[in-house]
Amino acid sequence: MSSLKLVKFEGLMAPTFTPFDENNQVNYDIIEPYAKFLKSNGIEAILINGTTGEGMLMTVEERKKVTEKWQEVCKKLEILMMVQIAGCSFADVIELAKHAEKIEVDGVLCLPELYFKPKTIEKLVGYLKEISKFCPTRPLYYYHIPMFVSVDVPMAAFMELAKKEISTFKGIKFTSGDLEKGFPCLKHGQVYLGSDTILCGALALGFTSAIMTSLNIVPHLAIKIVEYMKKGEVEKAREQQMLLTEFVEKILKKGGGDWVPSMKKAFNENFKDMNLGCVRKPL
Amino acid sequence: MSSLKLVKFEGLMAPTFTPFDENNQVNYDIIEPYAKFLKSNGIEAILINGTTGEGMLMTVEERKKVTEKWQEVCKKLEILMMVQIAGCSFADVIELAKHAEKIEVDGVLCLPELYFKPKTIEKLVGYLKEISKFCPTRPLYYYHIPMFVSVDVPMAAFMELAKKEISTFKGIKFTSGDLEKGFPCLKHGQVYLGSDTILCGALALGFTSAIMTSLNIVPHLAIKIVEYMKKGEVEKAREQQMLLTEFVEKILKKGGGDWVPSMKKAFNENFKDMNLGCVRKPL
Amino acid sequence: MSSLKLVKFEGLMAPTFTPFDENNQVNYDIIEPYAKFLKSNGIEAILINGTTGEGMLMTVEERKKVTEKWQEVCKKLEILMMVQIAGCSFADVIELAKHAEKIEVDGVLCLPELYFKPKTIEKLVGYLKEISKFCPTRPLYYYHIPMFVSVDVPMAAFMELAKKEISTFKGIKFTSGDLEKGFPCLKHGQVYLGSDTILCGALALGFTSAIMTSLNIVPHLAIKIVEYMKKGEVEKAREQQMLLTEFVEKILKKGGGDWVPSMKKAFNENFKDMNLGCVRKPL
Amino acid sequence: MSSLKLVKFEGLMAPTFTPFDENNQVNYDIIEPYAKFLKSNGIEAILINGTTGEGMLMTVEERKKVTEKWQEVCKKLEILMMVQIAGCSFADVIELAKHAEKIEVDGVLCLPELYFKPKTIEKLVGYLKEISKFCPTRPLYYYHIPMFVSVDVPMAAFMELAKKEISTFKGIKFTSGDLEKGFPCLKHGQVYLGSDTILCGALALGFTSAIMTSLNIVPHLAIKIVEYMKKGEVEKAREQQMLLTEFVEKILKKGGGDWVPSMKKAFNENFKDMNLGCVRKPL
Repeated sequence: MSSLKLVKFEGLMAPTFTPFDENNQVNYDIIEPYAKFLKSNGIEAILINGTTGEGMLMTVEERKKVTEKWQEVCKKLEILMMVQIAGCSFADVIELAKHAEKIEVDGVLCLPELYFKPKTIEKLVGYLKEISKFCPTRPLYYYHIPMFVSVDVPMAAFMELAKKEISTFKGIKFTSGDLEKGFPCLKHGQVYLGSDTILCGALALGFTSAIMTSLNIVPHLAIKIVEYMKKGEVEKAREQQMLLTEFVEKILKKGGGDWVPSMKKAFNENFKDMNLGCVRKPL
Repeated sequence: MSSLKLVKFEGLMAPTFTPFDENNQVNYDIIEPYAKFLKSNGIEAILINGTTGEGMLMTVEERKKVTEKWQEVCKKLEILMMVQIAGCSFADVIELAKHAEKIEVDGVLCLPELYFKPKTIEKLVGYLKEISKFCPTRPLYYYHIPMFVSVDVPMAAFMELAKKEISTFKGIKFTSGDLEKGFPCLKHGQVYLGSDTILCGALALGFTSAIMTSLNIVPHLAIKIVEYMKKGEVEKAREQQMLLTEFVEKILKKGGGDWVPSMKKAFNENFKDMNLGCVRKPL
Repeated sequence: MSSLKLVKFEGLMAPTFTPFDENNQVNYDIIEPYAKFLKSNGIEAILINGTTGEGMLMTVEERKKVTEKWQEVCKKLEILMMVQIAGCSFADVIELAKHAEKIEVDGVLCLPELYFKPKTIEKLVGYLKEISKFCPTRPLYYYHIPMFVSVDVPMAAFMELAKKEISTFKGIKFTSGDLEKGFPCLKHGQVYLGSDTILCGALALGFTSAIMTSLNIVPHLAIKIVEYMKKGEVEKAREQQMLLTEFVEKILKKGGGDWVPSMKKAFNENFKDMNLGCVRKPL
Repeated sequence: MSSLKLVKFEGLMAPTFTPFDENNQVNYDIIEPYAKFLKSNGIEAILINGTTGEGMLMTVEERKKVTEKWQEVCKKLEILMMVQIAGCSFADVIELAKHAEKIEVDGVLCLPELYFKPKTIEKLVGYLKEISKFCPTRPLYYYHIPMFVSVDVPMAAFMELAKKEISTFKGIKFTSGDLEKGFPCLKHGQVYLGSDTILCGALALGFTSAIMTSLNIVPHLAIKIVEYMKKGEVEKAREQQMLLTEFVEKILKKGGGDWVPSMKKAFNENFKDMNLGCVRKPL
């Protein structure tokens, strides 16, 4: 069963951009060549409809269709696929959870409710538990990204409770630079680092996985960081990290400071024969 | 044209609950008696699909259908109706803007983008401007509610720019107790106070309109506050305000502290023959 | 006993500037004429060494000597005097509490600990209780000013507990525009509004006292607001409030946006024969 | 000149507790044995009057006398000594800067102004520049600890400007777990990590120095982490880090959650013949 694969996965996962055409509509046709390109660059797992993928700016129908297209391609190419299904009205989250279950995606990632924000660990666990009922066989992950959602309950304690309450809960995407808070999470499940600029430090602390937008553009840097750290060549790993961090800083500066528009623009400029289009409004 | 009426409106507007049945599905049949009940209590204007109305927890289709039902009833009863159309993915906001235009609601209220939050006045005005293109004849209002959305750009300066950039922009719902920030907004357009507990103070400062959940349950208190303040009977107004504020505190305490569940529960308990049902998850 | 007077006081209190000479040292000689000037403008009570008085930028010795000079003058002119004694190391706060007790000031105002900030009501009450032991006959007030100190525990609940725990606790200075939070404080003791721009609204809600920097410069505006509100002439009060609010906005704009430097500069420009000098660094 | 030594220092620095006697007065006599104890445990450099040292809870006279006592002992034992001189009124900071200059401490560490907080890099640099005039030959460091002071201007950009504007500026103490923000600081000067629980990750990213309270109690753990990381034995380093992090968690849990009281209590319990006394109020 494919869902077991994700539970055992360790390594780098690329959060994919959603390709749009000149009318800002999803460009389904380019998904297959884009996936092949990632695979040829060493990418074995992807996250779709996350922040990089502008999932929160798409309709439910678009999210389903995009998921199906990626699913088809990922099966062919043997790429693991996690799908972000939240960041929209709860009724729509449930709809997407059912869909994820039906087509058997490898894993499901959930943002918290964006409007009626949970203020306690218990509330957040309750939200995810409700969702899990509609995708009962899919590994479930929580998407912690406090600078976007202004939800910042303590993750280690949250994971401890979530594991007890939700049988399919497997871990989190930890998108924050605060490793003091991230480090204690490692003992409670899978933790995907969501930061490109401190991978090397996180690996030293015991992180084994990361979801990083830069894997779309310069995957060799992160791949080398992982390899060097495995061999204990910390200085060499750090050199690659410095290159990666400077690369990200340059892209952000050039792109105006906002993450998704800057990164998508950089992708399009670096790979001119694979245009993923502009970001959607209001980005 | 009905839309002109809202632009000239001054007074109290009830933010309606969305009635749900025992399966947590919209109970369309109860909308008409609920509207009649409000009208009979002195309510001349309503806001639907706002926070009280759990708009962000409904699907696009539900929001459209609910809007149409209320619209039909409001026309019959001569109630003005403002519709909150945002708090969901941008594609869905546009869909709801077109719908609001098509069925000619009296006014449109918009939350900011909840995920890719605007950090500047310019970004926020740009977001609303884009929406306004799809409802070009409807008066447009911005929904300022920083404790829920974590967007807190300065409202007075925002209104100044919005008026210049968007011809249909008419004002804001100011849901915050910070009258230092609210008072300077008054010279830039319509400002609906979104607080039940300080109406009396806001009226003294020159506010003329408010959208208050308690209008569903104890409309006479707010109505009296307005009347007394108009006559300069400040002490009598304050007495009513104290009753209202204590009433709200009691409801919140009894209901567990969260606004919408507490208020909806109080409504149902006070008016047993008009059950509006439970709130939706994750509330 | 003079301390009873402050407990019964209702009305406007001027937070005085600390006058500095051309070497940025305290100009003690100008305190008497400055006090006479305030008295002649209708001021019956003052707060010294607060934010406007730059108390946190002075040494303990300076604060004591300034207090003694004002005390001497205030007795002569029959002005009530509250002294802010905190915003420094705890050892120094205790030293200033003893001094306040010894010279029998009319009341004592305390900021919270600025570094090891209290995170609960209990911690904050404990801090004040400890201080109260060293000024056991002086009425004690807490200085709530969250935008400066980043301490923002709920004031109504705090006052309830403080009253029980500290026999000399009499009330707070509420320096925030959030009247939703300020209004419920009124039933627990004296509440001095610390905002110039919404006095009219606060009075409508039942506030009876305020500490406003603008009383140094344009006392007649606030005095008129109070008078009109007492008579129920709300519109006239509001007109004066609009003048006052615009006056403050103009001063802030002209002075660069920071409160104390802008206000002190405006004072000096308006009353050229009474130069109170520059603010201290790092202002 | 001793001050050069600190500029070239790399490694672990212990932030010392200030010892108090049973009357909560400074226990000067125990400073020498305490220093010998640290030295015998491998500590070559200390920070006094910081957070761990409760500097902000002492009077100016106490801070001077404590500094002199430590200075005398440190010279004898060849320990480098940095002194935290801020966190009090600006007049007092200047007094302490002059004193630090006069007795020639090895380095000076400064908190920002706690009340009139700087909101821009320029304001913060201006504050430090002013202080540097009074200790013109001492290496100057800024103490970044946003969770205590609520000042959080971007450190990398700050360091870039500070280096240009202040000739004695050498670096910062970075007390935050957010390595995304800390990593880019490394290219602009010395950066002392102020976190005990992620040392291993910070070293991988290129940090070379840290100021950690746990060095008072379990110095061998941090020392081993540094050694293993130097040799590329990342896994062994991580094992020690996990021991250290768990040790800190246990102490905090046992001590009630507040850092300084918990740590001081743990020190006293572990070394019964060297009692450093209780923390001061309001801790």
